[in-house]
Amino acid sequence: MKQVNVGICGLGTVGSGTFNVLSRNKDDINARAASNIVVSHIGARRPNSACDTTGVNISADIFAVAEDPDIDILVELIGGTTVAKDLVVRALQNGKHVVTANKALIAEFGNELFDIAKNHKVTISYEAAVAGGIPIIGALREGLAANKIEWLAGIINGTGNFILTEMRDKGREFEDVLEEAQALGYAEADPTFDVEGIDAAHKLVILSSIAFGTPLQFEKVFTEGISKVSPLDVFYAGELGYSIKHLGLTRKRENGIELRVHPTLIPKTRLLANVDGVMNAIVVKGDAVGPTLYYGAGAGSEATASAVIADIVRVSRLVGERVNLNVPPLGYSLDKLSSDDVLPIEQTETAFYLRIAAVDKPGVLSKISQILSDAGISIEALIQKEPKEDQEFVPLIILTNKAIEKNIIDAIEKIEQLDTVKENVVRIRVESLK
Amino acid sequence: MKQVNVGICGLGTVGSGTFNVLSRNKDDINARAASNIVVSHIGARRPNSACDTTGVNISADIFAVAEDPDIDILVELIGGTTVAKDLVVRALQNGKHVVTANKALIAEFGNELFDIAKNHKVTISYEAAVAGGIPIIGALREGLAANKIEWLAGIINGTGNFILTEMRDKGREFEDVLEEAQALGYAEADPTFDVEGIDAAHKLVILSSIAFGTPLQFEKVFTEGISKVSPLDVFYAGELGYSIKHLGLTRKRENGIELRVHPTLIPKTRLLANVDGVMNAIVVKGDAVGPTLYYGAGAGSEATASAVIADIVRVSRLVGERVNLNVPPLGYSLDKLSSDDVLPIEQTETAFYLRIAAVDKPGVLSKISQILSDAGISIEALIQKEPKEDQEFVPLIILTNKAIEKNIIDAIEKIEQLDTVKENVVRIRVESLK
Repeated sequence: MKQVNVGICGLGTVGSGTFNVLSRNKDDINARAASNIVVSHIGARRPNSACDTTGVNISADIFAVAEDPDIDILVELIGGTTVAKDLVVRALQNGKHVVTANKALIAEFGNELFDIAKNHKVTISYEAAVAGGIPIIGALREGLAANKIEWLAGIINGTGNFILTEMRDKGREFEDVLEEAQALGYAEADPTFDVEGIDAAHKLVILSSIAFGTPLQFEKVFTEGISKVSPLDVFYAGELGYSIKHLGLTRKRENGIELRVHPTLIPKTRLLANVDGVMNAIVVKGDAVGPTLYYGAGAGSEATASAVIADIVRVSRLVGERVNLNVPPLGYSLDKLSSDDVLPIEQTETAFYLRIAAVDKPGVLSKISQILSDAGISIEALIQKEPKEDQEFVPLIILTNKAIEKNIIDAIEKIEQLDTVKENVVRIRVESLK
Repeated sequence: MKQVNVGICGLGTVGSGTFNVLSRNKDDINARAASNIVVSHIGARRPNSACDTTGVNISADIFAVAEDPDIDILVELIGGTTVAKDLVVRALQNGKHVVTANKALIAEFGNELFDIAKNHKVTISYEAAVAGGIPIIGALREGLAANKIEWLAGIINGTGNFILTEMRDKGREFEDVLEEAQALGYAEADPTFDVEGIDAAHKLVILSSIAFGTPLQFEKVFTEGISKVSPLDVFYAGELGYSIKHLGLTRKRENGIELRVHPTLIPKTRLLANVDGVMNAIVVKGDAVGPTLYYGAGAGSEATASAVIADIVRVSRLVGERVNLNVPPLGYSLDKLSSDDVLPIEQTETAFYLRIAAVDKPGVLSKISQILSDAGISIEALIQKEPKEDQEFVPLIILTNKAIEKNIIDAIEKIEQLDTVKENVVRIRVESLK
C-alpha cells in the first residue's frame, strides 16, 4: 500500500480534531484511501495537550512543513489570509497538494491559488471551508454535476442560527442571546464576523462559484447582519407562518447572479426553516434533480476534521498520479469559467416583510397600499393589530409579492414620508424557496 | 478535449431523462467533466417520443451496445436482474465502464459484479441506485470517509412515504391511499415491491455495506411492510409526539450489524419526521461529524438521471486512465471488506410502541406492566383512553424503553395470553435517532 505523508499546520481546534480522528479511525480511513496515511510533520507554535503527538516531527516554524521534501499533502489549519496564504503558496510551489479549511483564504484568494496549483500540477481542496462536516462541496461539484443549478440557499453560520432560534423559541433579545452564545463558546469575543454575515459571505461566495461556474467574487457579495432583527419581527413572522433565518442565497437570473446574505423570512413548512440551533443546512435547486438539502454540523473540532480528512483521502489517491484526473477546484475546468455578472442588490428580486408604525386612523392603509400598488407591488398578507391603550401608533405588518428590490425601496421611502407613519419602516426579505 | 462515448441501454423513464438532460445541459456537463461526452449508441426495443435521438445509432438488441468497440461507458437502465445482469457482465468483460441505476442488481449481485469489474480493470458506478437524485453514495463513500459510521436511517421509498404522509395528514386508510398512489403513478400496479419494503431493502443493503465496509448481504435484511399500519396507530403515535415512517435502518453493534426495514415511530422534532410525500432523506451518524442529513427526490425521470449523469461525469475522468484511481465500489478496498455479521432481528435493539385492547377493569394495567417489568422493560409513556359507550375493550398505548427485540416479543406473547386482553397486541418499533 502506498504511503502518503501528511503535514498538518496549525494544531488548534480543527488541527487537533484532524490529528485525533486520523489516528482513531486509521484502519477505516486507510482501507478507504487504499493508502497508508501518515501524519509525519506538524507545524505548530506549541503542542496541544488534546493530541498524543509522540514520535511526530513538530516544527514551531510552519514553513518548515512546506519545505519538508517528504510531505505529499500540506493541511493548512492556521486560518487568516496573511501567513496562511504565504504558507499555501509556498507548499503549492514546492509541489505539495494542499488541503485547507480556510474559507476566507479560498473566498478572497482562491482564483489566484487555483492558478498556482494548476501551474505546479498539484491540487488544492477545501471541503471543510463551507458548512464544516457537511460534504456540500463534493455534493455540489460532483453529485449534482448533471444540473444547471437554479439557486441555492443555506444556513451557513451556526452562531447566527443559534441566536435566531433562541429569539424565536424564547422571545429573547438579540444582545441577550449573543452574550449567552459567547459564554457557550459559539460566538467569538468579537462577533462581527458571525453576526454581520461576513463568515457566511465567505462560504456563499464559494458555493456560488461552484454552482454557476464563475470565478470567486467575494468583493461583490451583499451582506446584512442579524443584529437589527427584533423579537417583535420574529413574532410577527411566526404569525404569518414564517421563520426568520440568516440565509446566504445565490440565484442565477437572466441578466446576472444574485449573491446575498441577509435575514430572510422563509415558510415554516420548508425543511430549512426547521434547521435550528447551531446546525447548518443548504438547499440546492437543480433543473434536473429539483431541490436537495444537506444538513449537519457547520463547525466544531471533529465535524470540521471530518471534511478535512475526506479531502486528504481524496487527494491520497492522486499522490504520484497525473492531477488532471482530479475534479477541478470549482467543478468546472478553470478555462471554462463563465463571466456572469453579480447583480447589485437593488436589482435582486425578492418579496418583503414590512413593519410600519402607522397612526390608527381611517385612510392610512389605503394610502400605503396605493403607494405599493403604484410601484407594481401587491400585498400577499397583512396583519393589523388593535392599538394598545395610550398607543398612538399601531404596527401594520405587510408581506409583499416578489419585486425588484429598488422598486420596493422607493415605495418604502414614500411610505416613510407619510404624516401618518412614524419611524422608519422595518423591512426583511422573504424567500419562498420553491 | 477528450471524447467519451456513452451507450445507453433502456430508453424508458430514466433512460429518456438521462438522454435529455445530457443533451440539454451539454455545455455545463462537458465543462465539469473536462470531456466531450457523446451518446453514440442507444440500445432500446423502440424509440421514445420524449427523446430526439436523430443521428444516434439505435440497436434493438441491447447487447450490440456492449459489443460496440467505440463505447467507453455503458449505462444500464433496463432494470431487473436477468438480462440486465448479462448485459452488465458482458460490458465489463469487454472492458467498458458501467453506470447503472439498478438497485436490485447491485444489492443482489454487486459482490460478483465488483469482482468482474476489478478483474477487467474497469469500474461500475451506481449513484442512482439509492435515493434517486440525492448524491448519497458519494457523500457516504467519500464525504464521510473520515468517520466510523455508527448508524444510518432513511426514508428511501417515496411511495411508502407518500402513503404514510396521507394517512397521517388526512386520517385515511392504507388501502385507500394506495389506490390513489397507483392512480397518480407513484405506485406500480403490483405495489408489493414498494409497500412491503423490498425496494427499500435493496437500497438499505447498499448503504449498509458502504457504511460499514462489508460485502452486500441482501439475503440477511429484515423487511416488514406498511400495509398493516392503521390510521389509529398513526393517530396515537402523533399524540405521543411521534410520526410513523417506513425506515430503512442499519446500525453497528458490538456483536454485529442491524439491518432492517420496518414501520418506525420517530420523534416529530427530528428533521427526518418532517420529510413528507414522495421525498426521500437519509440521516447518517458518523463518530466525527455527528448526524448529517441528505434530502431530495428519490425517484422520477430527471432526478434519477441527475445521479446517472453524475456517475458518467466521474467515470469520464477515468476513461483511458488507470482505474485504481477510482473510489472503490463500496468505499473500502475490496480486499479490506470486513466480515461483520448481520444480527437476526430478534437480537436487534429498539424501543416499541404497543397498542393493547384491554378490558376496562382495575388491575389490568398492573398485570401488563408486571409482565414488562419482569422482562426488564420499562414504560416510557402511556395513553389510556376512556372506553366509548358499548365498548368493552379500551386501547392501551404503551411506549417502552429500548430492549432486545426477543425480550419484548416474549413479553407481548404473555400479555396476549391474559384473559383481560383481547386481540393481538399491535407493535411498532420506535427509534429516537439520537
